[in-house]
Parts: sequence; structure tokens; C-alpha cells
Amino acid sequence: MPVSTSLKGRANIMAMSWQTMMEFEPPSIGCVISDRNHSCGILTATRECVINIPTIELSAQVVGCGNTSGRKIDKFAAVSLTPAPASHVSAPLTAECHAKLECRVFDARMTARHSFFVLEVVQAWIDPARKDPRTLHHRGRGHFMVAGETIRLPSKMK
Amino acid sequence: MPVSTSLKGRANIMAMSWQTMMEFEPPSIGCVISDRNHSCGILTATRECVINIPTIELSAQVVGCGNTSGRKIDKFAAVSLTPAPASHVSAPLTAECHAKLECRVFDARMTARHSFFVLEVVQAWIDPARKDPRTLHHRGRGHFMVAGETIRLPSKMK
Repeated sequence: MPVSTSLKGRANIMAMSWQTMMEFEPPSIGCVISDRNHSCGILTATRECVINIPTIELSAQVVGCGNTSGRKIDKFAAVSLTPAPASHVSAPLTAECHAKLECRVFDARMTARHSFFVLEVVQAWIDPARKDPRTLHHRGRGHFMVAGETIRLPSKMK
Repeated sequence: MPVSTSLKGRANIMAMSWQTMMEFEPPSIGCVISDRNHSCGILTATRECVINIPTIELSAQVVGCGNTSGRKIDKFAAVSLTPAPASHVSAPLTAECHAKLECRVFDARMTARHSFFVLEVVQAWIDPARKDPRTLHHRGRGHFMVAGETIRLPSKMK
């Protein structure tokens, strides 16, 4: 999913495939962002990013994010996504995504060994009109599973 | 997804919702397993487990794993799943699952702070006849997204 960052007023966006919930309180997410990505240096320097959750309508833009580097180009413009101001971080929201998570780095002690960042979600945005969004899930090498229906089962699990 | 373990010949199985790929080489997975789970102590002691990937036909069993504890009962029997011998680890495979990952603990340095284990996959099993399996993805509080179709887009991404 697209992760946006910003350094000195210049926004960037990358495609991330490997992430997990880490904790409910504070709400936090762990994710792998390799230092081969231009965004890794920006995230390390600013400690802020936005995780933008894409649906199938944005698949071409997501792949575009994953196949270009922001070292030399303005990727938001290159892949036709629209940066919009966030409320708590300098990194921009991606206007086209139905859900956005403004994040700050919570724990960077696993970045050297595992390129693994723990991020605290400081603000979440969601379009309440979108029920069961057809989110994209990278299976590798350009294959994406598209979310199907949601079922409900009696459970005590959070 | 169900994670199986074994201690002194006694198998256990729990439901895990929070995991991510960590690296291609060695193939590794990061996952959150809280010490509130009986399985956490077994995994810490034995450093071995199996991640069993369920499809929609197994949804009742998965929820059963998440709503009972193996401290007192034989959970494989209680939820009607079948343990089968693995090849590299003492933890059992779950026969009903179409894909199984035999794992050893690769890095336990994040367990105290984040209940986070990095596991190396030492053997993977998959039923090649199952294309686009309808896997289960926990959205929380008993809601599960069922995998929809897989699409392919031209991409250089691994």
C-alpha cells in the first residue's frame, strides 16, 4: 500500500507490501521498509509518514508507486495521485484513498537488523460510505488478491 | 490463522491475526503472539511452530481456536482439527489446511517489548491443486474478510 512522506516540502510516495497490526493501545503498525527505498531515509529523518489504503480502482497507481523511485521525480505527479494536507504529520494524505493512517515512528530499534519500523497511528481517516472496500493485497510479482466479502462469526476475539 | 506448537508430546493450537512477511532470504515471517496465549510459552521454550493457513471452510475451527485456551484442554480435539507430523519441527501440521509453514524462531529480541517473534520458514507445504484459495483475514471482533479474486498487473516488484 502507498506510504507517503515529505522532506523539506517535497512529498514522496512508495509501495509497501509487508505490514501488520502490532498493538491496540497505542494503535500501532509494524512494517518493513528497506533502505533501498528513497522513502526509508525520509522516514528515518522525519519520523513521520502516512499509510494510504488502496482499493482496486487505484491498482495502476499502486504499481506505479512500486516501479519508480522518488529520488529524481515527483512521484505523486508521475502516478497521478493527489497529495493533501494531513492534520498531525508533515507527510501528505493521498486524496484518492478511502482510508489513511497518519503515523509517527514509535520504535526504530529493529530497522538496522530487519528494516522494521513500529509506527504509532496518531490519526485515522476513513470514508464511512465505503462498506467492505475492495482492498488490494500484494501476493508478489505483480499478483494482487482483491478483498472479497466480509463474513461475521460469533467470537470473543478482539 | 492457526499456529500449532508442541511441548513434551502435547500439541496445542492458537489463532493468530497479526503477521507479516519479513524477508525473502531466509524466508521469514514476523508475528505478534502475546504472552497471554498459552502457545507463547511453548514457542519461547521450543523455538518451533507451524503456521497453518486456513480457508473459509475452516472458519468455525479458526474461531474455535481463538476462543479457547490449551492450558486445560486438547484444542486439536476440541475444535476438530487433525494434527499430523511435520518434517523439520516438533510442532504438528494441521492436516485440513491447504498451506502450512514449518517455522523456527529466528529472532526473539522483540518479544519483551512488542510480543513480536521473527520466524524462519524452514519448510513450506502447499496443495498445488488449490488456485486462489479463499483465505480468511481477521478484521477484528469476529469479522473476517474472505480473499476474492487475484489480478495480475505488469510490475517489476518482487
